[in-house]
Amino acid sequence: MSDLVHDLPDDTIRDALPLKWGSVAPGVLPAFVAEMDYALAAPVADAVAAAVRRGTTGYAPLGDLGVGEAYAGWAHRHWDHAVEPDACVVTGDVIAGIRLVLETLCAPGPVVVPLPCYPPFRDIVAVSGREAVYVTTDPDAPDQESAGLDLAAVEEAFAAGARTLLLCNPHNPLGRVPRRSELEALRDLADRYGARVVSDEIHGPLVLPGLPADLGFTPYAGIDPRAVTVTSASKTFNTAGLHCAVVVAPDHADRALLRGVPLVQNHAYSPLGMVAARVAWGEGDAWRAALVERLGHQRDLLADLLTTHLPRARMRRMEATYLPWLDLRAYGHDDPAAVAVGHGVAPAPGQAYQPGLAGHVRLNVATSPARLTTMVERLAAAVA
Amino acid sequence: MSDLVHDLPDDTIRDALPLKWGSVAPGVLPAFVAEMDYALAAPVADAVAAAVRRGTTGYAPLGDLGVGEAYAGWAHRHWDHAVEPDACVVTGDVIAGIRLVLETLCAPGPVVVPLPCYPPFRDIVAVSGREAVYVTTDPDAPDQESAGLDLAAVEEAFAAGARTLLLCNPHNPLGRVPRRSELEALRDLADRYGARVVSDEIHGPLVLPGLPADLGFTPYAGIDPRAVTVTSASKTFNTAGLHCAVVVAPDHADRALLRGVPLVQNHAYSPLGMVAARVAWGEGDAWRAALVERLGHQRDLLADLLTTHLPRARMRRMEATYLPWLDLRAYGHDDPAAVAVGHGVAPAPGQAYQPGLAGHVRLNVATSPARLTTMVERLAAAVA
Ligand SMILES: Cc1ncc(COP(=O)(O)O)c(C=O)c1O
Ligand SMILES: Cc1ncc(COP(=O)(O)O)c(C=O)c1O
Repeated sequence: MSDLVHDLPDDTIRDALPLKWGSVAPGVLPAFVAEMDYALAAPVADAVAAAVRRGTTGYAPLGDLGVGEAYAGWAHRHWDHAVEPDACVVTGDVIAGIRLVLETLCAPGPVVVPLPCYPPFRDIVAVSGREAVYVTTDPDAPDQESAGLDLAAVEEAFAAGARTLLLCNPHNPLGRVPRRSELEALRDLADRYGARVVSDEIHGPLVLPGLPADLGFTPYAGIDPRAVTVTSASKTFNTAGLHCAVVVAPDHADRALLRGVPLVQNHAYSPLGMVAARVAWGEGDAWRAALVERLGHQRDLLADLLTTHLPRARMRRMEATYLPWLDLRAYGHDDPAAVAVGHGVAPAPGQAYQPGLAGHVRLNVATSPARLTTMVERLAAAVA
Repeated sequence: MSDLVHDLPDDTIRDALPLKWGSVAPGVLPAFVAEMDYALAAPVADAVAAAVRRGTTGYAPLGDLGVGEAYAGWAHRHWDHAVEPDACVVTGDVIAGIRLVLETLCAPGPVVVPLPCYPPFRDIVAVSGREAVYVTTDPDAPDQESAGLDLAAVEEAFAAGARTLLLCNPHNPLGRVPRRSELEALRDLADRYGARVVSDEIHGPLVLPGLPADLGFTPYAGIDPRAVTVTSASKTFNTAGLHCAVVVAPDHADRALLRGVPLVQNHAYSPLGMVAARVAWGEGDAWRAALVERLGHQRDLLADLLTTHLPRARMRRMEATYLPWLDLRAYGHDDPAAVAVGHGVAPAPGQAYQPGLAGHVRLNVATSPARLTTMVERLAAAVA
């Protein structure tokens, strides 16, 4: 196995990841925040450290420090997807970018949010003063093939006036890669109703090894020129706290609108985040390859651990992300996460992703094999 | 003179300050962005570098990493001003904090903005969906004593329905320390009309040496318990790009409202910024003392340079900030900044601070004596 991915040791991990490891009591293993228990990729760590030594702690520049070009190179190399560097508008975070897009580019109608979803999706729609219309994936869908977007419900929402859809591609928390055919059908609907798809592709590089060859990641903008993509290197490279994401707007009028907002509406990015993004997307291929290899092993380990310790847990194939979505309803707890924390492991509660959904948790396998093993053992001790 | 303040050399300054130095053509001296051409204070640089080495690049923690306590200590030591650490709500920037306060705490009525003002004040009022009511300082006010708030105009605005006032204390771009008596009169008006003052005190530590003893900085919250203060260590310590500021809310209900917003409405701060703020406010007294000493010398040098090269420029006494406000109307240019840039110096145009105001520029003395000398010589060559 590649030796690029290093587990953070117990004695420094709280300093490195103060939200994930600082929000649990000592002794509890955190599995809720979407961060990885791995040391930074060396090129990123070196570049950020060098920038700090130069004193690059002031205001971010007017230009993008090469971030757009780095993302275009990454998209081309990994997905054969053409992105114009100038289409990339720097912003602070993916969610800040979605807010900016909603406020700037999206018609005032309701916003379709597929459930379950990353909880800030619901918040950001509300903060932007929009109504959310939810379309829900059936928790009993037997496999990923049948766990896709409910296109009939999407059409109904568009027909009733919604003009925006927040796509999570690949999907957190379902760990699923949307199929190309499904995205094409969505595009056709958006087209018919004049709706716009905003595609969050932060998990795009985290498609796991071992999938069928025809099941790769489809950058949504590659099939829908009206779409806007929001993404960041922060999930693949553990740099969320440095604050840099991009809104990719192929349309020139959209770009001009995004760039035309007062600076105060889009100023939360940092020069250190821009340096990190440029280096991650520009020089991070080897790290990403080692990472998804490691995550593939962790996924396989999880499958073994579930067979042994939680045989009645249901999990659809983990196609992407490091965040498995577990259906524990067979064990009869409404809120298994609340039970688990008393047994020394803190997964994320399913209700956070889909209000009212009982018996689900989201775990995080981006840790060491030893920690993952303890997590599942403790979860089993709690719920089984 | 203290040797804590080091000028950044020509060969690294563009990397260190990419907005200030990267936004001008080579050879042009930038004097528009409010950043200092000095190396970071050593304790801050060391702490941020150590945090990067630990890999603290992920999500910011739930707690404040000691930022509130550090600010309380600073306010107590420097101004004998009592701040409860728990009253400090961390946010990304001063302007982000003002947006949060407007969206969360302020009645929906118009917002009084004294002119001239830091340009984002006008933008943030608009972005928050509020109407701005301007009250203007007479550009012909002969001295700082007479350049204060137009309290009659403020009262008129309150009487007409405004319920918020954005105070800049000390004032950028006027370089003025609001008098205690004037702030007490403002407090009485706010009280009478149930209006709230939001006080931006980012320049509080930058009161310059040599003022009359009774003319110190008055933390506005010290005389008005309903006020909310927004401030940051970033202006005194050159760390705007690390993103950490605080909203200080003495009232418990206000704090609860600020802390109760969805994370996505206030998540633009970074753990590195929090580390920088804690160390700056906690261990930065010696640096700040050396800095204001240096800035005092720069102010005196500017006075000499103006006498020699721009004798018809008018400047009221520079009491605070490193940003002198120059009235160049005697030289007959509507937009002296536009003329100056062709002569190798780029001040900020006065119209940015007060739309329609001709003949003014804002300079920046936080640089080396040699650069300041060249700046004024070039400005004189351009306009005189
Ligand atoms: C789907 C999705 N979008 C965005 C983010 C991160 O957003 P941000 O860049 O705002 O921190 C996450 C983090 O887990 C995520 O899962
Ligand atoms: C009055 C005032 N407020 C705020 C700021 C900085 O704001 P922010 O923290 O949003 O960068 C400045 C910068 O020059 C300023 O002069």
